[in-house]
Amino acid sequence: MSATARVEAFSDGVFAIAITLLILDLHVPDATPAGTLAGALAHQWPSYVAYVMSFSVILVMWVNHHRIFSLLSRADHPLLYWNGLLLMLISIVPFPTALLAKYPGTRLAAGIYAAHGLLIALAFTALWRYAIRGGHLLHPHHDRAEVARMSRQYRYGPLAYLAACLLVFVHPYATIALCLALALFFAFRGFVVKD
Amino acid sequence: MSATARVEAFSDGVFAIAITLLILDLHVPDATPAGTLAGALAHQWPSYVAYVMSFSVILVMWVNHHRIFSLLSRADHPLLYWNGLLLMLISIVPFPTALLAKYPGTRLAAGIYAAHGLLIALAFTALWRYAIRGGHLLHPHHDRAEVARMSRQYRYGPLAYLAACLLVFVHPYATIALCLALALFFAFRGFVVKD
Amino acid sequence: MSATARVEAFSDGVFAIAITLLILDLHVPDATPAGTLAGALAHQWPSYVAYVMSFSVILVMWVNHHRIFSLLSRADHPLLYWNGLLLMLISIVPFPTALLAKYPGTRLAAGIYAAHGLLIALAFTALWRYAIRGGHLLHPHHDRAEVARMSRQYRYGPLAYLAACLLVFVHPYATIALCLALALFFAFRGFVVKD
Amino acid sequence: MSATARVEAFSDGVFAIAITLLILDLHVPDATPAGTLAGALAHQWPSYVAYVMSFSVILVMWVNHHRIFSLLSRADHPLLYWNGLLLMLISIVPFPTALLAKYPGTRLAAGIYAAHGLLIALAFTALWRYAIRGGHLLHPHHDRAEVARMSRQYRYGPLAYLAACLLVFVHPYATIALCLALALFFAFRGFVVKD
Repeated sequence: MSATARVEAFSDGVFAIAITLLILDLHVPDATPAGTLAGALAHQWPSYVAYVMSFSVILVMWVNHHRIFSLLSRADHPLLYWNGLLLMLISIVPFPTALLAKYPGTRLAAGIYAAHGLLIALAFTALWRYAIRGGHLLHPHHDRAEVARMSRQYRYGPLAYLAACLLVFVHPYATIALCLALALFFAFRGFVVKD
Repeated sequence: MSATARVEAFSDGVFAIAITLLILDLHVPDATPAGTLAGALAHQWPSYVAYVMSFSVILVMWVNHHRIFSLLSRADHPLLYWNGLLLMLISIVPFPTALLAKYPGTRLAAGIYAAHGLLIALAFTALWRYAIRGGHLLHPHHDRAEVARMSRQYRYGPLAYLAACLLVFVHPYATIALCLALALFFAFRGFVVKD
Repeated sequence: MSATARVEAFSDGVFAIAITLLILDLHVPDATPAGTLAGALAHQWPSYVAYVMSFSVILVMWVNHHRIFSLLSRADHPLLYWNGLLLMLISIVPFPTALLAKYPGTRLAAGIYAAHGLLIALAFTALWRYAIRGGHLLHPHHDRAEVARMSRQYRYGPLAYLAACLLVFVHPYATIALCLALALFFAFRGFVVKD
Repeated sequence: MSATARVEAFSDGVFAIAITLLILDLHVPDATPAGTLAGALAHQWPSYVAYVMSFSVILVMWVNHHRIFSLLSRADHPLLYWNGLLLMLISIVPFPTALLAKYPGTRLAAGIYAAHGLLIALAFTALWRYAIRGGHLLHPHHDRAEVARMSRQYRYGPLAYLAACLLVFVHPYATIALCLALALFFAFRGFVVKD
């Protein structure tokens, strides 16, 4: 068992890279003649929506990761792997994002995006459950009310993304709308709620 | 509320990646026969100008970010999101840079570059305003004169980039010249001024 | 001689970037008409297998690196270079991974992948041998049983990857199967074993 | 003035990313039929030489950067910019590396590679000169003999790369041979010399 500093440093690196790599999927369009540049830029609006949505998701995930580790004082071997599973799913985010940007109207791309969100939510819940199990990783003087509040919140994430998955049978845009609403809701909520 | 160490580490990661990814938009040209390599390299001079300009902008932004956080002793939830908004704009920089390098003579590319600079300047002002509001995030023994000086400086950034935006109606090169002058002025100023 | 903090920070950066860059080799396929998207996505299954395998390998390597450095209290000049050699091999991982994803059925791609795994295992053994030689880099109160256990384990890694290299003369898929088994065995073992 | 921790963290990020991005220029070749894969891989040997050379250069630079900052206890504003100039040149390394890999036999590519090495050596000398000037940034109890030894060493770097630049008038391969010899000499020297 060891302190959590290096796990956080490695995780911060992966979060920072995944969130910054998203921009590589925003390509400068080929516009000839140059007069059509505005149209070409406007035409790739799904890329901008996908970019903002995925950036918001990763940012909210980073804040949540930060909150979990601020409650821990130790990291054991399995925690490194639960964390690694979460990081793998976070670093995959550019792929479903690029898929959605390229095929925005399709059921498959929307479904994969929402299903990936569901996997991330489940991995977060698993990391959290492992972290608080037994209590030997938590700070000796951790805030019990905060732990209880976070446990409650982690129940809703998977349910919301499960709903987004199911909405794909209604319409792909319904799935995207819910994913976007979730990402922006949590991001904008972060600007005002001080919990 | 928590200490600022992990916010700085995550932010440093995003700054470092965004500033290093800029090089990916400098492509080795195809030159056949090889004798024309010099010409092909010289031909992409707008890419070099755009590279140096954007590197300087991000470096100056990192120094400013460093200065803000050196005055803070705590980070609350909304600060993470104001910081996240700034990081999103910083990590977008490679896109308007590549756009400007590909379409250097167009009003649209120059305007988008300057408008993006304006958004960054506004996000910095917003982060700074939030950070000093109420004073509960500042170090208990912070330097009041330094805070006042920075507050004054943050007023000029948005105005300078607003001027760069408006210059696009005169000529795209006027906008680029002002953006370049701003980036190089602040970067070179940094070599000599010890404030 | 100096403390190990900055070596760990630089190494964490390289590990984090190498593990996150793997996703750049998962390309969104061109599917026209869009109805064939599912087929196009399914068709690139070797890329998914290669991605999960290499992510697992780098994650297991990072945990091992973490364990080595948690036993050290000092870093001297040669340690920086043994560590640098290991980091070079880690950062090369995306290349044999992309090779394997593109030519999954070939003896050459499978052999290069396994040979690269062998080189990483040898570099780890060399770093470990150097780190414990003389004992002046180890923590004064290090756990001797842990050091002995790790020395035993480092004997098996090169042997396992040597076997994977030799299996290429049987069939490329035999090599890939052993590499995948090794990666997943150590990754899944990590979820339950607390050593 | 502030402590050096955050400058080192940001610099480590840039070094780690620049050194890891080098792999992105090693492309998996298109080989049809697959039987020609070995030939296609062998054909791009200049890319492998350029990769190892540039990785070694950046690693040696990181170790030197580490040595400089281990002697400092403070960072003032101009130091951040001298460091930023060095980081810009480090993060540009992938460009001359890719140029050399694509046009290995040309005078221009070899000359640009060596000239870039000269610029890095000069930037290092400038950073070092600024860091020790006046002595207010050095640790109060720094090792004077170490400072004198490093000052001597920083005189040779620019001279060696200047020689590499001039050799381009003899033959491009003479320049590459000297650059490679310098990179490998310092890297291998690092494995045995404990200074």
